[in-house]
Amino acid sequence: MKDLEAILTRQQARGLYRRRRVSDGPQGPEMRIDGREVLAFCSNDYLGLANHPKVIEAMQAGARRYGAGSGAAHLINGHGRAHHQLEEALAAFSGRPRALLFSTGYMANQGVIGALLGRGDHVIEDRLNHASLIDGATLSRARLHRFAHGDMDALEARLNAIESGEKLIAVDGVFSMDGDIAPLPQLAAAARRHDAWLMVDDAHGMGVLGERGRGSLDAAGLTIDQAPILMATLGKGLGVFGAFIAGSEALIETLIQRARSYIYTTALPPAIAEATRAALALAGDEAWRRDHLFALIKHFRQGAIALGLPLMDSPTPIQPLLTGSAQQALRWSAQLEQAGLLVTPIRPPTVPEGASRLRITLSAAHDEAHVDRLLDGLSQLKPKGEENGR
Amino acid sequence: MKDLEAILTRQQARGLYRRRRVSDGPQGPEMRIDGREVLAFCSNDYLGLANHPKVIEAMQAGARRYGAGSGAAHLINGHGRAHHQLEEALAAFSGRPRALLFSTGYMANQGVIGALLGRGDHVIEDRLNHASLIDGATLSRARLHRFAHGDMDALEARLNAIESGEKLIAVDGVFSMDGDIAPLPQLAAAARRHDAWLMVDDAHGMGVLGERGRGSLDAAGLTIDQAPILMATLGKGLGVFGAFIAGSEALIETLIQRARSYIYTTALPPAIAEATRAALALAGDEAWRRDHLFALIKHFRQGAIALGLPLMDSPTPIQPLLTGSAQQALRWSAQLEQAGLLVTPIRPPTVPEGASRLRITLSAAHDEAHVDRLLDGLSQLKPKGEENGR
Repeated sequence: MKDLEAILTRQQARGLYRRRRVSDGPQGPEMRIDGREVLAFCSNDYLGLANHPKVIEAMQAGARRYGAGSGAAHLINGHGRAHHQLEEALAAFSGRPRALLFSTGYMANQGVIGALLGRGDHVIEDRLNHASLIDGATLSRARLHRFAHGDMDALEARLNAIESGEKLIAVDGVFSMDGDIAPLPQLAAAARRHDAWLMVDDAHGMGVLGERGRGSLDAAGLTIDQAPILMATLGKGLGVFGAFIAGSEALIETLIQRARSYIYTTALPPAIAEATRAALALAGDEAWRRDHLFALIKHFRQGAIALGLPLMDSPTPIQPLLTGSAQQALRWSAQLEQAGLLVTPIRPPTVPEGASRLRITLSAAHDEAHVDRLLDGLSQLKPKGEENGR
Repeated sequence: MKDLEAILTRQQARGLYRRRRVSDGPQGPEMRIDGREVLAFCSNDYLGLANHPKVIEAMQAGARRYGAGSGAAHLINGHGRAHHQLEEALAAFSGRPRALLFSTGYMANQGVIGALLGRGDHVIEDRLNHASLIDGATLSRARLHRFAHGDMDALEARLNAIESGEKLIAVDGVFSMDGDIAPLPQLAAAARRHDAWLMVDDAHGMGVLGERGRGSLDAAGLTIDQAPILMATLGKGLGVFGAFIAGSEALIETLIQRARSYIYTTALPPAIAEATRAALALAGDEAWRRDHLFALIKHFRQGAIALGLPLMDSPTPIQPLLTGSAQQALRWSAQLEQAGLLVTPIRPPTVPEGASRLRITLSAAHDEAHVDRLLDGLSQLKPKGEENGR
């Protein structure tokens, strides 16, 4: 058996060791972490719904009505009214005939790719796709092709080289570590030309982009025919937990029959479904959350550009500052924390070597004063070598 | 793109189509499904904790204290006191130095296998292992070897044939569709002889077997040196949701650094962790739940044997009746439902072709009168061809 201690020591030496922090109290801009008060800019609670009283009440009422757990898988007797109503609400929200609730986005991506493709088929993915889309392709045993980020010529070349088998193009709608939006109309055109499925993982667009927060497909005006497979998560913009696939009646029925990560797992607690349904209604109705969020994004970007920070080109709540080395990301994160600001460093393998960064995220729960405090902290950051006044 | 309608039609013709039922109200023996009251024998809520008032209260209090969602992954800022306390309680419960909370058992199995093994390594699995252990091996890119169910000679032959690379033997502690218990001491001996990891998925033993419900490893008296990797789920015997891996300090730190299904996913809602911690305390303290459950198992088996039913040899709450064909399983399940009894038919690919069955599960929430009603229903079952009085 492998010497795990030796692996851990090597990871530490490379500045890639991960230590967990323990937060206390609810998610929100002002939080307590490792016993210290900080102003946080790293959660994915983009609309500020994770700690919303109505969402909490819905969870409590759900627990009272349906108990604490579902007791079984959906295909045994774990599928309850709460799950069913959430699926109906998600289908309506996403403007598709049906939606299927999965326990996590990770499992939803695995489930759908494995249900539709197998050995001899092809999954074509943007190089910066989320890990779960990569793992979903690997698990399906289809061949995985990756193209340079956002490069439609590279995608076309890949598609042209495929001679037989099913083809599925899968992309993040909003890229989780970069914040940019996939070129969805061009992707849909490529999919149509090559008779390929187009699957969009909208984990970071759901609730944030489009009319009523319907996500990046809505923002790009794509129909179900153009993008037949929509995946989105329920623990980011919606603030709770879980994920879903939305699509045609035949797609959803196929997943119920064949998606292993759907069939062979315990259904989510009904109370989670109830909380999520409450969050979905708030996300749709309260457009002010998106208006406020995008005003903060604009304010932050103007300030960061004025400071000459290494800001990446992102129109979403994900506003990364590129540091290059993992050490620099760690150093800046530590300097910010000294100033009471929590911004997580993102290092390989989450991002490519040399592309470490601070991943700043904004939320409708922030206010302009919070962003000003962040900008003030960022203005004090010193490049390497200047920490001791040199 | 594939014609999904045609696939669905074929599945229907083979008697393998899955239709979901919608339950209403809480999990429990007496439940409402598709608008009808039934007495259910198919959930995995073995201790009857899914609807326990203290577990529900803990979920509600958790939502009040920590909000509805965690907002981020554990390595960003989603790891909170509730998760941390549950991990400490799980470590103490399982008698191992540390435990790591995963969103689902499916993801826990993938995470640990992928973190420890890769191309050139070997995963050796019992042929009846749960789908998630199979998928975990596939995803890791290690070579998957499967041996005949419970056959230690076959395992030994497999191990002898492996010339290089890491080896991990993975088994269900209690087999989910058969109910029998893995020969853990022999497996541990084989692992020791071949310097292989032994990993036990105790989804169906946790809370049910061993002192204080510590599971199949405790029941078999295996130490952490003999079985270094324990996985168990929190949505079956404990009645809530989620899963954990328990093991050494180095194992858990390695998973935090490398388990993709741990790193790249949103942390569970803290309220789920709080509810689970309450369930864990009840599972340990209330030995009467296990005593009552095993009395029911004995009562059921005596009755089923007296009726000459095709009962499988299982000492656990999973008491399958082998029907052989999928059609027979569907027919019997439908006959039982006419009598107000809910027992799910289990068909391929969940079980091998020709090994369809009714999977009866018992729970501490059942009483002897419930079991007598089940036995009465089972006594009325007619073999094929006798339905119309012939």
